[in-house]
Amino acid sequence: MKCIFGIDVGGTSIKFGKFINGELVLSFDARTIIDPNDAVNSIINIITKAIDVNIGKDDELIGIGIAVPGPVNNGVVLGAENIYWGEVEIEKILREHYPNCEIVAINDANAATLGEWYYGSGNKKSNLVMVTLGTGIGGGIIINNKLYVGSLGAAGEIGHIRIFPFKGRPCSCGLSGCLEQYASATGIRRTAYGLRKGKDTVLNEKGRIGVRDIVDGAVAGDEVAISVIDKTAYYLAIGLATIANTLNPDLILIGGGVSKSGDILLNPVKKYFKEMAFYSIKDTEIALATLYNKAGIFGAYYVVWEKISDVR
Amino acid sequence: MKCIFGIDVGGTSIKFGKFINGELVLSFDARTIIDPNDAVNSIINIITKAIDVNIGKDDELIGIGIAVPGPVNNGVVLGAENIYWGEVEIEKILREHYPNCEIVAINDANAATLGEWYYGSGNKKSNLVMVTLGTGIGGGIIINNKLYVGSLGAAGEIGHIRIFPFKGRPCSCGLSGCLEQYASATGIRRTAYGLRKGKDTVLNEKGRIGVRDIVDGAVAGDEVAISVIDKTAYYLAIGLATIANTLNPDLILIGGGVSKSGDILLNPVKKYFKEMAFYSIKDTEIALATLYNKAGIFGAYYVVWEKISDVR
Repeated sequence: MKCIFGIDVGGTSIKFGKFINGELVLSFDARTIIDPNDAVNSIINIITKAIDVNIGKDDELIGIGIAVPGPVNNGVVLGAENIYWGEVEIEKILREHYPNCEIVAINDANAATLGEWYYGSGNKKSNLVMVTLGTGIGGGIIINNKLYVGSLGAAGEIGHIRIFPFKGRPCSCGLSGCLEQYASATGIRRTAYGLRKGKDTVLNEKGRIGVRDIVDGAVAGDEVAISVIDKTAYYLAIGLATIANTLNPDLILIGGGVSKSGDILLNPVKKYFKEMAFYSIKDTEIALATLYNKAGIFGAYYVVWEKISDVR
Repeated sequence: MKCIFGIDVGGTSIKFGKFINGELVLSFDARTIIDPNDAVNSIINIITKAIDVNIGKDDELIGIGIAVPGPVNNGVVLGAENIYWGEVEIEKILREHYPNCEIVAINDANAATLGEWYYGSGNKKSNLVMVTLGTGIGGGIIINNKLYVGSLGAAGEIGHIRIFPFKGRPCSCGLSGCLEQYASATGIRRTAYGLRKGKDTVLNEKGRIGVRDIVDGAVAGDEVAISVIDKTAYYLAIGLATIANTLNPDLILIGGGVSKSGDILLNPVKKYFKEMAFYSIKDTEIALATLYNKAGIFGAYYVVWEKISDVR
């Protein structure tokens, strides 16, 4: 059977998906083990081994899509600090290993956006914005059924929308008041550390708390935890209203680890969004992403499938 | 000669441009005089008369582009309060008068964006955002060399980006903290009324002040006027940084009446933008629009010219 691999390279694991006739038939992870003196080959070796042992004797490998954690231009990774890569001609390198195969490289956030858009809860809507809430906040934009990356590939930096004009929390990017400092996992924890002080709350049971602790506390009725979720929802809604006022998308998807909080976060976000959005875009749909950490392999598969389909 | 008219219908005047071979050969205004009982015919009559007396015996009218102050869908104006119009099949009506002519209707803010993009200081850049600072703040977006209006035609509502998370100035749209309340002519005056209180400033010489008075005061060295301009620039830069973080355009154009303030506003806007933009989009070009109130007729011309060219 003709098969395509979608691969998502990250700093801790490399995710693989094997697709036959548009279906994900196999998925697995490999640990990212990097020799800093040979960072490119370390990863290429993991990838080629994983592919080779998972191609059956009846399989014909026709395409590999690869998502990487850095900017990609014309098949070349411009740099990816997480995996110790500088400029790497990734498509060319993989082509040497798989000469009869279509190979396409893409940035990982863009891959996740395409994956959710086409195979996840994005439902192939024409205009979509994906907001990824993790340690930081990333974003991806689909316009007129195509990924939109902006003039320098820097579109969708939603985490750095300034929501406080003055005296906002300092951000790791050097600015202050960035949405990322309020609605990412880091930002939520920061809000929690501020609000739990001197209060009778489950959030004081541990020193270091995670988003899961806050969500669990809120579900259990802890007032401070509920207030952390409420404030987070308010801040996030400001960012989403700004995006909707600017782009008027069909749909805004919320993904990333924080989105696993589910309706306890989504419902107040929707409520505040309605209160803060301009009347013409008040009814913009907001939903949770559903592919979680598989979005990247679906997106990596999509870009190579799209290219092969075009060629036909 | 084959000629095309670009028309921009507004609440106080209707602007006309006659184009031959892509050149604006004649432009003039007519006062908008409306019989509220027959608002559509009042305006159609002004338009047809103005066109008819300005077509020479050697002219062949091949196209009319018409910009109107309301949403337009498939040649139908959905409503335009400024000119007392409800739903009007404007293309069909004009086609009855000019059956051999290509007719295209477009929203006026979109026309102004297209006009500045193609014939003004937009320089036909692939990705451009136009911000129009007038009584309110409007916007228009070009993505991949096409006007982008969003899923419901509501994209580019830049004036309603929320720049204060709490306790912002109330906005006429019912929300608060909207950019429009800080960087439109209305917003700038509001800042001035707040800052002049109890101060020794030229801004206290009149009761009601205009943007022109503030600009003149700042040029003359009045400290309060300078401070009004500085605050305005800061607020506007927040909005522009948000737009750039989201869309990463090649160019942001500032148009509308307020933009006539020129460099005294543009320079601090650029300074604050650099301070507040995420590093990857810090060098986004920001420039003033140049066609002023002719942008609409150029844009109206553009849409019909584009359609005729496609047909060829």
